[in-house]
Amino acid sequence: MRQRHKPWADDFLKENTNLIIPNPYDKKGKWQDYFGNDNPIHLEIGTGKGQFIAGMATQHPDVNFIGIELAKSIIVMAGSKVKEAGRDNVLLLHVDAADLNGLFADNEISTLYLNFSDPWPKKRHAKRRLTFHTFLEQYRHILQPDGEVVLKTDNQGLFEYSLVSFSQFGLALKDVTLDLHSIEDPENVMTEYEERFSAKGQPIYRCRAQFSQDPQ
Amino acid sequence: MRQRHKPWADDFLKENTNLIIPNPYDKKGKWQDYFGNDNPIHLEIGTGKGQFIAGMATQHPDVNFIGIELAKSIIVMAGSKVKEAGRDNVLLLHVDAADLNGLFADNEISTLYLNFSDPWPKKRHAKRRLTFHTFLEQYRHILQPDGEVVLKTDNQGLFEYSLVSFSQFGLALKDVTLDLHSIEDPENVMTEYEERFSAKGQPIYRCRAQFSQDPQ
Ligand SMILES: C[S@@+](CC[C@H](N)C(=O)[O-])C[C@H]1O[C@@H](n2cnc3c(N)ncnc32)[C@H](O)[C@@H]1O
Ligand SMILES: C[S@@+](CC[C@H](N)C(=O)[O-])C[C@H]1O[C@@H](n2cnc3c(N)ncnc32)[C@H](O)[C@@H]1O
Repeated sequence: MRQRHKPWADDFLKENTNLIIPNPYDKKGKWQDYFGNDNPIHLEIGTGKGQFIAGMATQHPDVNFIGIELAKSIIVMAGSKVKEAGRDNVLLLHVDAADLNGLFADNEISTLYLNFSDPWPKKRHAKRRLTFHTFLEQYRHILQPDGEVVLKTDNQGLFEYSLVSFSQFGLALKDVTLDLHSIEDPENVMTEYEERFSAKGQPIYRCRAQFSQDPQ
Repeated sequence: MRQRHKPWADDFLKENTNLIIPNPYDKKGKWQDYFGNDNPIHLEIGTGKGQFIAGMATQHPDVNFIGIELAKSIIVMAGSKVKEAGRDNVLLLHVDAADLNGLFADNEISTLYLNFSDPWPKKRHAKRRLTFHTFLEQYRHILQPDGEVVLKTDNQGLFEYSLVSFSQFGLALKDVTLDLHSIEDPENVMTEYEERFSAKGQPIYRCRAQFSQDPQ
């Protein structure tokens, strides 16, 4: 995503510390307390401009959503979208997803969304893909045993790679679709990228994967 | 595949019992003896008209190939294709693939090909799909621990189903491609169906899966 200079970004961050919270690493293991309820926590990595997380939070008021987004100029857009939607079940973290185990305790997350993650098509950049095994190792810790990773992308190479990477790491595929918009899924909440690529007629791929099939 | 009446089919079977062998269940556990060498055995289920198995046998003279095909009028076409190619590393079995454990001993097969298998799109026919768990259970027995199942198809539904079915059964995906003909694979031998569908511009899906990653 192109980052534009947004003079209001710093102001927005200062004025919305209850939404885009300043010291997220302090909250490790205490996120439900912070939300003030014991609803399950769903995590999105690379939230972008926030259409997905705002839409999901509206559709699922009994779920707590946390979105991680690295780019300041983008996370503030997600922030204003969440505010517009009037949701209090969303928190946004302005951090790099590199240290998830510093942000979340084991089993703290029940579902993890990867939406149109950067594909890093070059082989030598494979380790930056959010489905590289070092990331999966972190997901394994923070996710509950029967928790799911849900991946959506328009990128064929990333999808092929991710299916194999999940499988080699021992995640079981629960569901695969190679053309999400050819089926009617009224539950599906589109992301900004999804809207753009599906409007161009490109197929959208989705899969759901699980570390363990039976809750332990 | 539409079956046409072929008056020469019975004659062909009678005259080519060294190629389309009459009592295959007697050979269980003794296929290498029958080939007269200790080369690995690759099995294709639903061989059709034989372009794949004849082409593979030519490309890999150090591999023994066995093709299973249910339809008499079709297996004789495969038989004449193998004869034309002058291959002696191919055997064809005119049987239903329903009882593979009656045909092959444990670990007797090193690679199994499913090429454009009938998709059986209706849910109530799922058990007929060659990637239904009852078939995978048979494959697990006859395949060596590090042996591979290689699936090619044009059928989106069958491919999606098979990825999940493999995964749920504990097979690990080694490789997935969602558009085989967009990559250069000089090793790829096309089947009759593959030629037909790729000529129409349809993507061809392929995956390779393994029961166990380390030979035991
Ligand atoms: C291609 S965009 C997709 C945005 C959104 N998910 C969508 O589908 O419209 C990827 C987003 O992930 C963010 N991102 C990439 N790597 C990240 C990381 N390591 N940690 C947090 N965010 C990251 C980028 O800043 C960008 O906003
Ligand atoms: C759709 S055709 C594909 C033929 C060939 N593999 C190709 O790609 O051109 C499927 C073939 O599998 C055969 N077949 C289907 N079920 C079978 C079974 N249970 N045992 C043996 N052959 C079977 C059919 O007779 C048919 O020739």
